[in-house]
Amino acid sequence: MMRVLMFPQAVAWEANKPLVTETIRVDPPKEGEVRLKVVANALCHTDGKSLNKLGVHVERDKTRTSLPRCSSAQCVSPPPVYTLSGQDPEGLFPCILGHEAGAMVESVGPGVTSVQPGMYVIPCYTPQCKDAACIFCQSPKTNLCPKIRATQGRGVMPDGTSRFSTLDGKPIYHFMGCSTFAEYTVVAEISCAVVSEKAPLDKVCLFGCGVSTGLGAVLKTCAVEEGASVAVFGLGAVGLAVVQAAKIRKARRIFAVDTNPKKFEMAVQLGATDCLNPNDIPDKPIQQVIVEATTWGVDYSFDATGNVEVMRAALECAHRGWGVSCVIGVAASGKLIQTRPFQLITGRSWKGTAFGGWKSRTDVPDLVDQYMDGKLPIDHYVTHSFEGVSAINDAIHALHEGDCLRAVVSYFKQ
Amino acid sequence: MMRVLMFPQAVAWEANKPLVTETIRVDPPKEGEVRLKVVANALCHTDGKSLNKLGVHVERDKTRTSLPRCSSAQCVSPPPVYTLSGQDPEGLFPCILGHEAGAMVESVGPGVTSVQPGMYVIPCYTPQCKDAACIFCQSPKTNLCPKIRATQGRGVMPDGTSRFSTLDGKPIYHFMGCSTFAEYTVVAEISCAVVSEKAPLDKVCLFGCGVSTGLGAVLKTCAVEEGASVAVFGLGAVGLAVVQAAKIRKARRIFAVDTNPKKFEMAVQLGATDCLNPNDIPDKPIQQVIVEATTWGVDYSFDATGNVEVMRAALECAHRGWGVSCVIGVAASGKLIQTRPFQLITGRSWKGTAFGGWKSRTDVPDLVDQYMDGKLPIDHYVTHSFEGVSAINDAIHALHEGDCLRAVVSYFKQ
Repeated sequence: MMRVLMFPQAVAWEANKPLVTETIRVDPPKEGEVRLKVVANALCHTDGKSLNKLGVHVERDKTRTSLPRCSSAQCVSPPPVYTLSGQDPEGLFPCILGHEAGAMVESVGPGVTSVQPGMYVIPCYTPQCKDAACIFCQSPKTNLCPKIRATQGRGVMPDGTSRFSTLDGKPIYHFMGCSTFAEYTVVAEISCAVVSEKAPLDKVCLFGCGVSTGLGAVLKTCAVEEGASVAVFGLGAVGLAVVQAAKIRKARRIFAVDTNPKKFEMAVQLGATDCLNPNDIPDKPIQQVIVEATTWGVDYSFDATGNVEVMRAALECAHRGWGVSCVIGVAASGKLIQTRPFQLITGRSWKGTAFGGWKSRTDVPDLVDQYMDGKLPIDHYVTHSFEGVSAINDAIHALHEGDCLRAVVSYFKQ
Repeated sequence: MMRVLMFPQAVAWEANKPLVTETIRVDPPKEGEVRLKVVANALCHTDGKSLNKLGVHVERDKTRTSLPRCSSAQCVSPPPVYTLSGQDPEGLFPCILGHEAGAMVESVGPGVTSVQPGMYVIPCYTPQCKDAACIFCQSPKTNLCPKIRATQGRGVMPDGTSRFSTLDGKPIYHFMGCSTFAEYTVVAEISCAVVSEKAPLDKVCLFGCGVSTGLGAVLKTCAVEEGASVAVFGLGAVGLAVVQAAKIRKARRIFAVDTNPKKFEMAVQLGATDCLNPNDIPDKPIQQVIVEATTWGVDYSFDATGNVEVMRAALECAHRGWGVSCVIGVAASGKLIQTRPFQLITGRSWKGTAFGGWKSRTDVPDLVDQYMDGKLPIDHYVTHSFEGVSAINDAIHALHEGDCLRAVVSYFKQ
């Protein structure tokens, strides 16, 4: 249990440079911590890239907040600087990125009771402490457990230190409480969702971020009901998961919007009834097109682009009287959403989702079970596969080609 | 029934000029219409006036939309131009303003079944057609019946014509489907909420707009639950009604925010637990003050100012994870609300209310009954009283003095 592991990790040394694969030290887990052997890790990219037609220039988010979330920038584009909190304007380098993984418990620190070596887990950047005193864990309304938020945002473990270091002793920062661009990592026990020991980790790793987020936006945050109409902007994995979940909920009509028509085939396979390419309707705002097609707008709309102009379009195509619009995408630093308040006065609601509203340790195991039972297929999101930590840069390259939904890098045979 | 009535009306002839009291013609009601003897009419003013400290310059709204709503500008400040719909950029003059009244049915047009001469009604600018084919009336989620929206927005009755004209035959426009700055008016049957025949119309007229709106924002739109924390920005009648309703719902903590400390006494009487004057805390955004006082923000926040900067503050003081912020005030034309999408991602919802979400013909009679039963006191909102249509200009003057909540002008003895 007290071994110090030295294994290849993909370390981000500075902003906007390729990741470096090198052997570093991964210290044993301390109290309340778990050391994981990362079996597979998925990479995602900002789905908004192909949607820039809809609004202003789409920037990839180069910031990290106290609630870091999925976006290609957060996966692959250093620097994860810490601007939004205003507490730490400096970059956190070097660090180990990655947050969408399937792993096996290698060892546990003192006091850890909910996992044991050998168990399969999905590390979750949204933890769930389950403490009786945690008003967030005790509320059915949210999944935003703040237990380790502060240290996670500072790139360290809950005791304020890092488990990663170079062979000559220089500390390396954690990222989003996961740091899964690594063969071994250390996470908090409360970040570990224990999943079926039969689960293929190179698939269910997808439940660690984007796919869960899209599914949960529909199934949990908005609780879309049978017969509803839905519109989703951006058809990356997150947006396609919205389509899939809307179909699961028997939505009557599902608008799928993207400027890349290559995305429409899978959207239709997953249940989209209407595919719209804003480039085909150059003279009319996309929200107007959807309102005209539905008389009053859609019951639920989702932004899966991170573009604040698209977020506004999504709100404004929501149904007069009761339409709900949900922000899923992460916007670039400093960007503001805006609309006329009249949109709210006339009955639209604007909300957002983080990790789809799922309580990580409670809900992620259920999602995996549904997958194992064949009720929730997700294999179609894995469009590219690679082997070995050193292939992460290749996976990043694949992401930028545009046809990629999820590139999964397997570090070990399961 | 077919008499043509000629009675004093307060006519707005052009923008920003005092109203003119003169004798005009009020034609009989046509099919589906009702002619009302207006017994009393209340005037309100933009509660945001005293809150300009919180944000940018507070303009009074000089626009009218297809959903006209309460604000002093809409009551008293022509021109009610029609900019937001984009359909009719011209001013609608001359017109008869007023929309918060208690009235008696004088006569009914063909096909009218739900009211009879002699009944007491509150004319409501949000109608309720109750048609089986009206998805809005059939939905429990909204009160925004659109049945006569288009013609109401154009200042005419549902058949496209006006019932008002000068003695020499020049037509005069209607306003918000009410036009209660008049001894007699004609409204649609579906705009008439029938109330108790024992109700004092010089009090329950308040249920025609602002007080109902503030109460409904809490009781209906947000359905605030026992033990919740609440913040309200702007302590005019609307904001004070929010305080009153929050107390009815047994809210645990009620923050009342205004830059005019004279408002605090009544706020405390109605249930406010914490009164905040942003002028007393010059160096800290008011939302930060409230978040610090509550650790994570309030469960529900309400803007009753119409100032878009205050709307942002209200959203941003809402509780992480589940806080709901409700826009009540009507913003100036062209103004946009804005915030960082991170505010939504971390669990806040932004919504709005129109007429408090009350379905007018169903719910207003209930509010009046609660008042009659002593369960819902509202007399405290009437701070100024006047007699006769010609006193409307005096009432407007009183409103601008700043100590006025509601000025009620009684046209007739009840």
